[in-house]
Amino acid sequence: MEKVEQYTFQVQPFQEDCCGELSWAALGNLLLRCAQTHASARGFGELTIDGQRYVWVLSRLVIEMRRMPRIGETFVIETWVRSVYRSFTDRCFRILSSGGDEVGEAYTVWAMINMETRMPASMQQIADAAFLACIDASRPLSLRPGSRPRVKAESSLCELRAVYCDIDCNRHVNSIRYVEHMLDLFSVERYLSQRVRRLEVAYSEETYPGEMMRFYKGEEKDSEVCVEVRKVPGGKEDGGEALACSGKLTFEKREKDKGIE
Amino acid sequence: MEKVEQYTFQVQPFQEDCCGELSWAALGNLLLRCAQTHASARGFGELTIDGQRYVWVLSRLVIEMRRMPRIGETFVIETWVRSVYRSFTDRCFRILSSGGDEVGEAYTVWAMINMETRMPASMQQIADAAFLACIDASRPLSLRPGSRPRVKAESSLCELRAVYCDIDCNRHVNSIRYVEHMLDLFSVERYLSQRVRRLEVAYSEETYPGEMMRFYKGEEKDSEVCVEVRKVPGGKEDGGEALACSGKLTFEKREKDKGIE
Repeated sequence: MEKVEQYTFQVQPFQEDCCGELSWAALGNLLLRCAQTHASARGFGELTIDGQRYVWVLSRLVIEMRRMPRIGETFVIETWVRSVYRSFTDRCFRILSSGGDEVGEAYTVWAMINMETRMPASMQQIADAAFLACIDASRPLSLRPGSRPRVKAESSLCELRAVYCDIDCNRHVNSIRYVEHMLDLFSVERYLSQRVRRLEVAYSEETYPGEMMRFYKGEEKDSEVCVEVRKVPGGKEDGGEALACSGKLTFEKREKDKGIE
Repeated sequence: MEKVEQYTFQVQPFQEDCCGELSWAALGNLLLRCAQTHASARGFGELTIDGQRYVWVLSRLVIEMRRMPRIGETFVIETWVRSVYRSFTDRCFRILSSGGDEVGEAYTVWAMINMETRMPASMQQIADAAFLACIDASRPLSLRPGSRPRVKAESSLCELRAVYCDIDCNRHVNSIRYVEHMLDLFSVERYLSQRVRRLEVAYSEETYPGEMMRFYKGEEKDSEVCVEVRKVPGGKEDGGEALACSGKLTFEKREKDKGIE
């Protein structure tokens, strides 16, 4: 089986945002779907070791899109595993137009956690010879990996409880839902004149159903804004906060010729 | 071209809810996608008449699922237009398992609105001979159409501002986002022991970016709960409320043998 695989999609009705472009949420979910599909086809989509079930959770996500596919447009997501180390796996993506031009790249770091203990497994324990044979360390990716964003703000912008539609089958807030909530901190008007070019998220603690998520925004500098999602563990309103994830959004002006009405 | 068309899907990773079943949001969006794809293939996906652009908006949505497809499962959505009258079109759906068993049905009412004036067009103006030739009035659907749900509650359960990820390319809150927000009024624990069997939504006024949505819940009776979403028009906090949409959810206990861990 090839180390790298390509998946072809078309921007479907209702996968678009208010500008008629593939939404970041839809793109994020497609990247995760490709990761899961690629891993499952190679026998490491989910593992059971000594009767314990292990699933992949996202630790870092960086996406940079020079251009977002528009509604009706066909595009390709290419993915491969670049490396395996300690508790982590690096997985890379390229997003191509139907003509083969690269329109974006993505870089992710994944850990495999024990569904019972929620603790990450050592990759030495997980990655057998078949898994290691799938790694392609030489394939180039030009994307900067980025650093862990930090926000110093002490008062939150808003808070949201982790509700049913936030939760995926791993029983925690879905990685991409955090991205949606981060994007929602900025006005629709802004998105009509500016686009997000680059998005980084570093995931820390899982948020469970019913827990409160508080959103903090840093000062904007050179079109970059950092955001933190801090959760109140165990649903206790008076308890301290724990970092659920932090992100950085990079905006840029929409090009006039690619502008929207 | 056939009046009825079938579209095959598979429940993809991250289209599932916390129980590992296709989420209502994903199902709703797939139904809308099939509607749009079916209409577009027949030349009435979107119309321009006298230089004015007309798009479809959902007026009513009823879905009843005897069983929700599970992650990895293949299923089929079948759709056809049943009738055209005044400003409306009735479109029906059947959801089939890969073996051809019917697992659910859906019934929708659509209006075509002028993108500029947001006013509905008369179907006499819109539906030409080619459109009328696509109607299948005889195909059976066992689904009860349902009535317009009403809630008398005077204090809201919560409020949410219409933000970026709520908005679709028609520049209003996406029909299925309302469904997500309605489902989110109930706890994750409830969904682990009960499932939504039937969902009805009647759409009234559009909600625009930045407007506040307030959620009202009626008393539960025989596992049926009505919900209203009222918006504060124009984003004015002190203004009156207008009904954006109302819905009814019917819960049922999960069968033990189809239960989840």
